[in-house]
Amino acid sequence: MTQGLSLDELAALVGGRVQGDGTRRVVAVRPLEEAGPEDLSLLTAPRYRPAARDSRAGAILTAQALAGDPLLAGRDLLLAEDPGLALIAVLGRLRPPAAAVPGIHPTAVVDPTAQIDASATVGPYAVIGAGSTLAVGAVIGAHVVIGAGCRVGAGARVHPHAVLYDDTELGDRVIVHGGAVLGADGFGYVTAGRVHHKVPQVGRVVVEADVEVGANTTIDRATLGETRIGAGTKIDNLVQVGHNVRVGPSCVLCGQAGIAGSAELGTGVVLAGQSGVSGHIEVGDGTQVAAKSALLQSSERGARVAGIPAVDLAAWRRQASALGRLPALFRRVRSLEKKLGEETSGE
Amino acid sequence: MTQGLSLDELAALVGGRVQGDGTRRVVAVRPLEEAGPEDLSLLTAPRYRPAARDSRAGAILTAQALAGDPLLAGRDLLLAEDPGLALIAVLGRLRPPAAAVPGIHPTAVVDPTAQIDASATVGPYAVIGAGSTLAVGAVIGAHVVIGAGCRVGAGARVHPHAVLYDDTELGDRVIVHGGAVLGADGFGYVTAGRVHHKVPQVGRVVVEADVEVGANTTIDRATLGETRIGAGTKIDNLVQVGHNVRVGPSCVLCGQAGIAGSAELGTGVVLAGQSGVSGHIEVGDGTQVAAKSALLQSSERGARVAGIPAVDLAAWRRQASALGRLPALFRRVRSLEKKLGEETSGE
Amino acid sequence: MTQGLSLDELAALVGGRVQGDGTRRVVAVRPLEEAGPEDLSLLTAPRYRPAARDSRAGAILTAQALAGDPLLAGRDLLLAEDPGLALIAVLGRLRPPAAAVPGIHPTAVVDPTAQIDASATVGPYAVIGAGSTLAVGAVIGAHVVIGAGCRVGAGARVHPHAVLYDDTELGDRVIVHGGAVLGADGFGYVTAGRVHHKVPQVGRVVVEADVEVGANTTIDRATLGETRIGAGTKIDNLVQVGHNVRVGPSCVLCGQAGIAGSAELGTGVVLAGQSGVSGHIEVGDGTQVAAKSALLQSSERGARVAGIPAVDLAAWRRQASALGRLPALFRRVRSLEKKLGEETSGE
Repeated sequence: MTQGLSLDELAALVGGRVQGDGTRRVVAVRPLEEAGPEDLSLLTAPRYRPAARDSRAGAILTAQALAGDPLLAGRDLLLAEDPGLALIAVLGRLRPPAAAVPGIHPTAVVDPTAQIDASATVGPYAVIGAGSTLAVGAVIGAHVVIGAGCRVGAGARVHPHAVLYDDTELGDRVIVHGGAVLGADGFGYVTAGRVHHKVPQVGRVVVEADVEVGANTTIDRATLGETRIGAGTKIDNLVQVGHNVRVGPSCVLCGQAGIAGSAELGTGVVLAGQSGVSGHIEVGDGTQVAAKSALLQSSERGARVAGIPAVDLAAWRRQASALGRLPALFRRVRSLEKKLGEETSGE
Repeated sequence: MTQGLSLDELAALVGGRVQGDGTRRVVAVRPLEEAGPEDLSLLTAPRYRPAARDSRAGAILTAQALAGDPLLAGRDLLLAEDPGLALIAVLGRLRPPAAAVPGIHPTAVVDPTAQIDASATVGPYAVIGAGSTLAVGAVIGAHVVIGAGCRVGAGARVHPHAVLYDDTELGDRVIVHGGAVLGADGFGYVTAGRVHHKVPQVGRVVVEADVEVGANTTIDRATLGETRIGAGTKIDNLVQVGHNVRVGPSCVLCGQAGIAGSAELGTGVVLAGQSGVSGHIEVGDGTQVAAKSALLQSSERGARVAGIPAVDLAAWRRQASALGRLPALFRRVRSLEKKLGEETSGE
Repeated sequence: MTQGLSLDELAALVGGRVQGDGTRRVVAVRPLEEAGPEDLSLLTAPRYRPAARDSRAGAILTAQALAGDPLLAGRDLLLAEDPGLALIAVLGRLRPPAAAVPGIHPTAVVDPTAQIDASATVGPYAVIGAGSTLAVGAVIGAHVVIGAGCRVGAGARVHPHAVLYDDTELGDRVIVHGGAVLGADGFGYVTAGRVHHKVPQVGRVVVEADVEVGANTTIDRATLGETRIGAGTKIDNLVQVGHNVRVGPSCVLCGQAGIAGSAELGTGVVLAGQSGVSGHIEVGDGTQVAAKSALLQSSERGARVAGIPAVDLAAWRRQASALGRLPALFRRVRSLEKKLGEETSGE
């Protein structure tokens, strides 16, 4: 157990300031309900202020703007401009990730032609194919299978049971979570006479630097060229990325989202949970697709859309509202028809 | 092959009674279409009565209420108050699960500090990390990876290729199916200047007793505290449970359902297939969310909802019905407008 | 690197003809944007004609119908009746799949009662249970777990990290991609007194010949009989197939589609991405369910449906169109009401 750090030390670390006792030491970060006197806790959304007041936490990390809040009176506070960024820095000190021990576990099966940097870690039962390379500090978890001709960048981390098919490339600092499958065959067939003939999928998957890929997510290899995920994009669990898709940099693909083949996403696109994007369309930079929605046509830069099929978010809200009032509208029209002595038509 | 059991013996087992020949022996349970003279079959829904009549099954397990059904005349029947519960008891005798042989497979990689009960089973190539414990009768399948600091309860069963990240806890009799990933990092970032900074996910996953987790389902670890699944909850395949989620006891989460971060589900909540729950909302006890629906706001106890966004089920049915008659409504309004000599507006 | 093939040779192979220099040799197939002088590229959709004109590709495979296209003037063309089928043939020559080396990797754990054909391949760390059989030319990837009593057909290929539970059967030439789980327990419980009692799932999964199963897809074993996938059906990634489901031959199940328990799909059914099918319904031959849609009732042969719940495609299009004009309809009705001096009701 660490001796912890004082609030003054943490304030220096995060570029913030202390309100209260700067010499107070904290050893861990816990949620408001679970924290004790040796813990720092976190208050971000104002609605949790009562929980912060009642918490047993030794100190609370929150925004500068809440410095004078009466509910927090008398508490030791670590104030930061962006508490989220401050939390990242604090956790980096109080809960540094366990350092992987470089070396290849004796049970790993590494092809003699693979090149493993001396600083890389290869876990139990990992399998690494011919000609694949692991760069400085790469960490390959237990049971990971890496095919032939793959490249894993510096500091990249592949968690247990992930699979990279042949020729997959991971950039520096990429994180791939357990069970993700990168580079499986795209879903491509030519149907003739009711028979679906498989089109060989001879392309590959390229994942650029600083991408994170969630557990059990699947990214298919391209038919001919590349399926590519842009730098800094974050992908949640159980997401499907079809063959030949291009995802731009800094996108956010939430849980169970799906992208059909050959779609192109620009920079900073956000797909909310369980949303979908049709194949062969272009999704403009910064487009945001709402949860459960289906983008069936190309979108403009900055579009915010919702619905099935997805339409402009404001229009979708009007539709949803109108839908709720639809039964009443039927009654109103019926009333008008009676007044005009008209027969009910079409009902 | 077992010698089977007589209908009289089975009736005693399930607390039911026999109509017909109580000495008839059956050796297996098969569907109506496949069963032969040595098999017991099952008739639950009345619509399958003709199939029961035509079945070659030696005997049929059905509800007391169908005792006098003319379509079943002359057949040997095993009558039970709840045929489903009776089926469970019968299968437990006729098809007892294969007993696992206690012991650690020589290929398993078990950290010297892990504590494995002598009655537990660890399969080929399983990997168990430092300080993890397996309780009485736990069964760990081939290729399962269990990180450091995990606890697996008595009689729990983890099927091949499941992954438990560090610090995951499984209660007694928990079942985890193949490919499920428990404890991967939650999807948490702080975005500043278009860069998504990863928030370390230092919490964990706790799965209480008697939970079943389906194949390739993912349950993320909490950012700080716990993601928790309540006792007796059943989770189907390919379900996504986000970080910090609390699922109450006795819930049912059907295939491909998704729960976004920090949502709280009460007791006995049912999420039908492909439904979704937004983050940071509270889902009241007994709430039922229909298939394909998206619950975006907190729900009351006992709520039954459907739609995107989900509304009260009755309201959703009215909406769906009205939607089908909407094209006709347009024609009716046009007709009224003509009658009143009004120009068409907005079309 | 191969010496490649001439266009004349390729024309003979695909039953097509050459326009331009038949002696030109190509060594690979690449997308229009990436292809160079030694590559063949592909032009299928007419909208990519400008990209074809600008491509550096040495030759272009396209349809007979585009032979005289002015944008392609002066280029060397390989003309085929069906360029897709031709592509399959060409790739089979220029990029033949790597031949697996027969034999059992020394790290594989094969039960002594399993029968492995001498021509089969078993990869590192694969586990094969008692009584299972691998037919001629079957290829089992690294880390695949095959339970007891399974059958893998001739030429079938199971990619790394797939799991077959006990008694699963794969027909000839079946392909199973990484992380797929076949034969896990169906989601079946009998609820009594708020407790969900697990119904033992003692059936199995049968996958007929020429089926392809995508990465991380799950197909559950039947409660009593079989869950069956018909010959030639193609299943994409992250698809859920519930217990007791029957999928007919030549179906196409796209990414993240789901089929609830006991549904029956006929021949040639297409489920588009993220669509769903309810349990216990019959889906007629050739039915097509649109993306994101939910088929809740049995469908007729040849039905084309969309929406939640799914309705006839044409009706859904009218609904979707009407929905967009709904806010305007409210205004029009309000205008009529004013004209008739009526109070607004129900709003």
